[in-house]
Amino acid sequence: MRLDVVTIFPEYLEPLNVSLVGKARARGQLNVQVHDLREWTYDRHNTVDDTPYGGGPGMVMKTEPWGDALDAVLADGYETGSHAPALIVPTPSGRPFTQELAVELSERPWLVFTPARYEGIDRRVIDEYATRMPVHEVSIGDYVLAGGEAAVLVITEAVARLLPGVLGNAESHRDDSFAPGAMANLLEGPVYTKPPAWRGREIPETLLSGHHGKIARWRRDEALKRTTANRPDLIERCDPKAFDKKDREMLSILGWAPDPAGEPYGRFWRRVDDVEE
Amino acid sequence: MRLDVVTIFPEYLEPLNVSLVGKARARGQLNVQVHDLREWTYDRHNTVDDTPYGGGPGMVMKTEPWGDALDAVLADGYETGSHAPALIVPTPSGRPFTQELAVELSERPWLVFTPARYEGIDRRVIDEYATRMPVHEVSIGDYVLAGGEAAVLVITEAVARLLPGVLGNAESHRDDSFAPGAMANLLEGPVYTKPPAWRGREIPETLLSGHHGKIARWRRDEALKRTTANRPDLIERCDPKAFDKKDREMLSILGWAPDPAGEPYGRFWRRVDDVEE
Repeated sequence: MRLDVVTIFPEYLEPLNVSLVGKARARGQLNVQVHDLREWTYDRHNTVDDTPYGGGPGMVMKTEPWGDALDAVLADGYETGSHAPALIVPTPSGRPFTQELAVELSERPWLVFTPARYEGIDRRVIDEYATRMPVHEVSIGDYVLAGGEAAVLVITEAVARLLPGVLGNAESHRDDSFAPGAMANLLEGPVYTKPPAWRGREIPETLLSGHHGKIARWRRDEALKRTTANRPDLIERCDPKAFDKKDREMLSILGWAPDPAGEPYGRFWRRVDDVEE
Repeated sequence: MRLDVVTIFPEYLEPLNVSLVGKARARGQLNVQVHDLREWTYDRHNTVDDTPYGGGPGMVMKTEPWGDALDAVLADGYETGSHAPALIVPTPSGRPFTQELAVELSERPWLVFTPARYEGIDRRVIDEYATRMPVHEVSIGDYVLAGGEAAVLVITEAVARLLPGVLGNAESHRDDSFAPGAMANLLEGPVYTKPPAWRGREIPETLLSGHHGKIARWRRDEALKRTTANRPDLIERCDPKAFDKKDREMLSILGWAPDPAGEPYGRFWRRVDDVEE
């Protein structure tokens, strides 16, 4: 997979030399190219921004450096045999970046990232490249960053760990929160390792029982508790068919009941508190 | 503000020397300390992880290095006059990190981050420090990373830019997506700067009109369009009192109608497609 990043802060992308992404590069699984946008400015101040049309605070990144930079990056990639690029534009105005999109992007051969600063990039740049390739305008969450570089690190890491052979033995997709499977849509509960007692704190007895069924049940109950506490929206989105009898007992203890407007054990569950409102 | 980060990948935190956070450090507004967790291991392999109790794939980070590291970091901070630490634990099982939490954290004097790798940190570490200080277990989004370091970069940047005097003139909070105010809960629409024509693409005429009312209306309509396309959930969460007559006309064009189950122009709007289901 080839990854290109065009940015005014190439140093911010140093973590792409480290850890999982760094190792994947060293093994030749990833070809990462970080480019300084200011290479495509031609005035002595290396200007990349100007005031917004229509007025207002902040600055807007100019069409010309981005257009020239993207043309050069794309030409280089095509010349060296890359194909089918997709443009990834981190922006708070984008669609949410999800694990599903990470999986989709991990199957593409070439991703080009355009992390912006200030109020963002002149819209015409996105409109122009959208005529030539898929464009994903994505937001990594409902908070405001100083620029798109941190989002690029997040997205590249989420994507790179899904590439075949990138994750080592110490890591695993199988029980990931947000991964498909039995735990789909549930958060993982607490984990423990040796020693069995630390500062007077012991590990839950069930985990020492050696009884696989009980351990699996305990983990499932802890996942339901954690999800109820931290992400009730995920329970509401669960397919009720994913809940067995024991799950429903625990959900009931945690204050959930089938949505009275839905079918029995219907599409949504509601916190009893909400239902009583 | 003091920020401590304990990690097995200190190099990953290099971006804290760059851009906005780097400048705030250089000005003395931020005291950032990055610590290598392996300094608090005492075997020749510098072991920080072990197999999970109860079986299963992956490895769990051990109590002792984390406990010893946090004790040392806290002792150092208190000795040098810091007070009221809060522990920030990035984890996919946490509550969503939001702009609201960024604001809350930006008002604290001292944040300690514990980015983990593998399957996470032995639960007893969190339980132990939760008896001494506020603990925020937070997730930056619904995707899986290889570790918490990228989340630390995201959170520190979202927090640091809110500190007084950190943002320069080229940047601005005022019209931020997710910021309080008129645009609360709406995504920002497109932005443009000079030149007025680029590769045959012109800027929208309204922005050249000099008519402030028309420009504000155009921006508001574009924000409604963008939000409808990329984040319909935000429209649903909007207080309907925030929508004026022109907003409602545009929402209607975009396929929204007041929730038939709600009051007229009631709490939720629904896409007409959804209503017809």
